[in-house]
Amino acid sequence: MKNFADRLAGKIKEMNNPTVLGLDPKLDYVPATIRTKWAREEPNAQTASAMAILEFNKALIDATCDIIPAVKTQFAYYEMYGLEGLRALKETIDYARAKGMLVIADAKRNDIGATAQAYASGIIGRTSLIDGSEVAMIDADAMTLNAYLGIDGIEPFIKVAQESGKGMFILVRTSNPSAGDFQDLKLDDGRSVYEAVADKVEEWGLPLVGEFGLSSVGAVVGATWPEQAKTLRLRMPHAFILVPGYGAQGGDADSAACSFTDHGDGAIVNASRSLMCAYKKRNDLSEEDFATATRDEAIRMRDDLNAAIERKLG
Amino acid sequence: MKNFADRLAGKIKEMNNPTVLGLDPKLDYVPATIRTKWAREEPNAQTASAMAILEFNKALIDATCDIIPAVKTQFAYYEMYGLEGLRALKETIDYARAKGMLVIADAKRNDIGATAQAYASGIIGRTSLIDGSEVAMIDADAMTLNAYLGIDGIEPFIKVAQESGKGMFILVRTSNPSAGDFQDLKLDDGRSVYEAVADKVEEWGLPLVGEFGLSSVGAVVGATWPEQAKTLRLRMPHAFILVPGYGAQGGDADSAACSFTDHGDGAIVNASRSLMCAYKKRNDLSEEDFATATRDEAIRMRDDLNAAIERKLG
Repeated sequence: MKNFADRLAGKIKEMNNPTVLGLDPKLDYVPATIRTKWAREEPNAQTASAMAILEFNKALIDATCDIIPAVKTQFAYYEMYGLEGLRALKETIDYARAKGMLVIADAKRNDIGATAQAYASGIIGRTSLIDGSEVAMIDADAMTLNAYLGIDGIEPFIKVAQESGKGMFILVRTSNPSAGDFQDLKLDDGRSVYEAVADKVEEWGLPLVGEFGLSSVGAVVGATWPEQAKTLRLRMPHAFILVPGYGAQGGDADSAACSFTDHGDGAIVNASRSLMCAYKKRNDLSEEDFATATRDEAIRMRDDLNAAIERKLG
Repeated sequence: MKNFADRLAGKIKEMNNPTVLGLDPKLDYVPATIRTKWAREEPNAQTASAMAILEFNKALIDATCDIIPAVKTQFAYYEMYGLEGLRALKETIDYARAKGMLVIADAKRNDIGATAQAYASGIIGRTSLIDGSEVAMIDADAMTLNAYLGIDGIEPFIKVAQESGKGMFILVRTSNPSAGDFQDLKLDDGRSVYEAVADKVEEWGLPLVGEFGLSSVGAVVGATWPEQAKTLRLRMPHAFILVPGYGAQGGDADSAACSFTDHGDGAIVNASRSLMCAYKKRNDLSEEDFATATRDEAIRMRDDLNAAIERKLG
C-alpha cells in the first residue's frame, strides 16, 4: 500500500481539511434518545452501552465522511465496556474505512521487542493464526505510540509501517496540564526531554518520508502549547504532526497552526468533544439533529483552521 | 479491600516466593499437542488460537498456583487475536483469581484526564453502564503504567487504587537494550530521566503505603540493570518493585535481588518465557508434561531468588 503520510496528506488536500474526528465516546456524550432506546431494547446493559456508542459513532461518520479525512478512536472508551466495547471499536473502525476515512488508533502502546511486535501485528499489521493463516485484526491505518522504552519499542511498528503503508504518531509534547512533569525537564546538553524525543522521531522517520516530504513516523504535539509547537515543527521538518487539544481542551486554531509546515501541510488537528457534543450547544436544534450539529461544527472548524493556516503563511 | 501492597507482600511471605508468572502466550510457546488439538477441533482459526492459549494458561496456573503468588498477563499477546484473544485474557484472569493468585495487568497504559479514568475503570476499577449499574470488566489487582504524561495520567489510577485496594507499577527503568535511549539522558540537575521518574513514583506513592511499609504505587525496574536497580531501591524506599528481565532476557537472581529492600521484601520478579517454555529444555520429559517442567522451574527459580536475597542481606 502507498506510504501512509502520502495517503493522509493527499486526503487532507483533496478535502481541504486537516481535521481528524476524535471518536472518544463517553456515554454522556451520546444523545439521550439513543441511550434511552438501547437501554430499553437491549436487556444486557454492557451490550446496550456498546450499541449506543456504535450507533452514535456511525451517525457521526455518516455526517462527516465527505468533509473530514480521518477518525481517531481512543481505545480507552471502548475497552472500558469489555468485549462488547471492543466489538463496537472494531465495527466503528470498519465502518469509517468503508466510508473512505483513514483510521488512527489512539492506543499509546509501548513495549519491547516481541511484545511491541505483537501490538504492531494486532493494531496495524496482521496476526499469524494457529493454522498458519494471517488475519488483520484492528487494521488501523496508523496508531499512537509512547517512546519511553526507546527504539526497541518503536522498530517493530516502523517495520510494519514500511511493509504495509501504515503509520504512527509518537508522543512528543502532550496537550495536558502536567505534560511538563517529565517532558519539560532540562537535559545537560540544553535540550528538554521532549526535544530529545523529537530529535529521535525525526531521525527514525527519515526512511519513511513520502512524496509530500512527510514521514509516516509522526509526532503528537498538543495545540495547547504553541511556543513548543513552533520549535518542534522546526526540529522535526518531516514529521506528520497529530495535534490534540483543539476546542474543548482550550487550544485555538492559531495555536494548532503552529504545527503546520510553511507549505501549510504536515499536520492534522483532532477534535473529539467539540465535534461529538456540538449538539449540546445548539438551542436551535433538537437533540435528534445531533449529526447536523456535528457537521456544522466540522465546517466551522475546517474554516477556522484554514484561516489560521493562511494567517501563518502570511 | 485491603491495600494492594499489603496483599502482595503478604502472599509473597506466605509462599516464601517473590515470583510472578508472566503469561505472555505466544503461539509458539504452546506445546504442539495443544495446538494440534485445537487446530483440528475448532474450525475458526482465531478461536482455535485463543482456546489453545487459554488451555495452556490454565494448565500453567494449575501447576503453580500453590507456589507462585501472582500472574502478569501481557495484553499484547491477547489483543493480537482480537475479540477471541481478549476473551481468553479475561478467562485467564478470572481463572487465576479463582485459584487465589493476584493478577497484574501488563498493559502499560498512558493517557490524560478522563481517558486515564476510562482505562482505570476498565482494568482495575468499575465501569458505569447505560442503566446506571457498575461492572468490573478486567478486575485486575494491579496494572502497569507509563508516566510520560505526568501526574494527570497517573492520578485517576491512584484514586481507584485507594478506593478499591488496587495497585500499579510505573515504568522507571525498563529491561530492554534501548532502555537508555531516553531513560538515561542526564538532566541539568545531575539526575537521569529515570531517576526523575523514580522520585515522582516515590512521592506519588506515599499516601498508599501499607502495613509492610510498601506502597501500592510501585515501579518497574529491569533485572538486566543491577547498578541502576541498587540506586533506585534507595531512591524509592517505599515502592513495590516489579522486576522483569529475569531468565530469558539475561537478568540473574543476584541482579534481581538488587531491587529488594534490606528486609528482603518489596519486590516481585517476573519470568515469562523461562517458566512457560521450561518444557522445551527438558529432554527427560515428554512435551505433554509441560506443566511439570514449569513447576520444576518455578521451584528452582524460587530457590534461586531466595538464595540471592539471603546473599544480599548477608
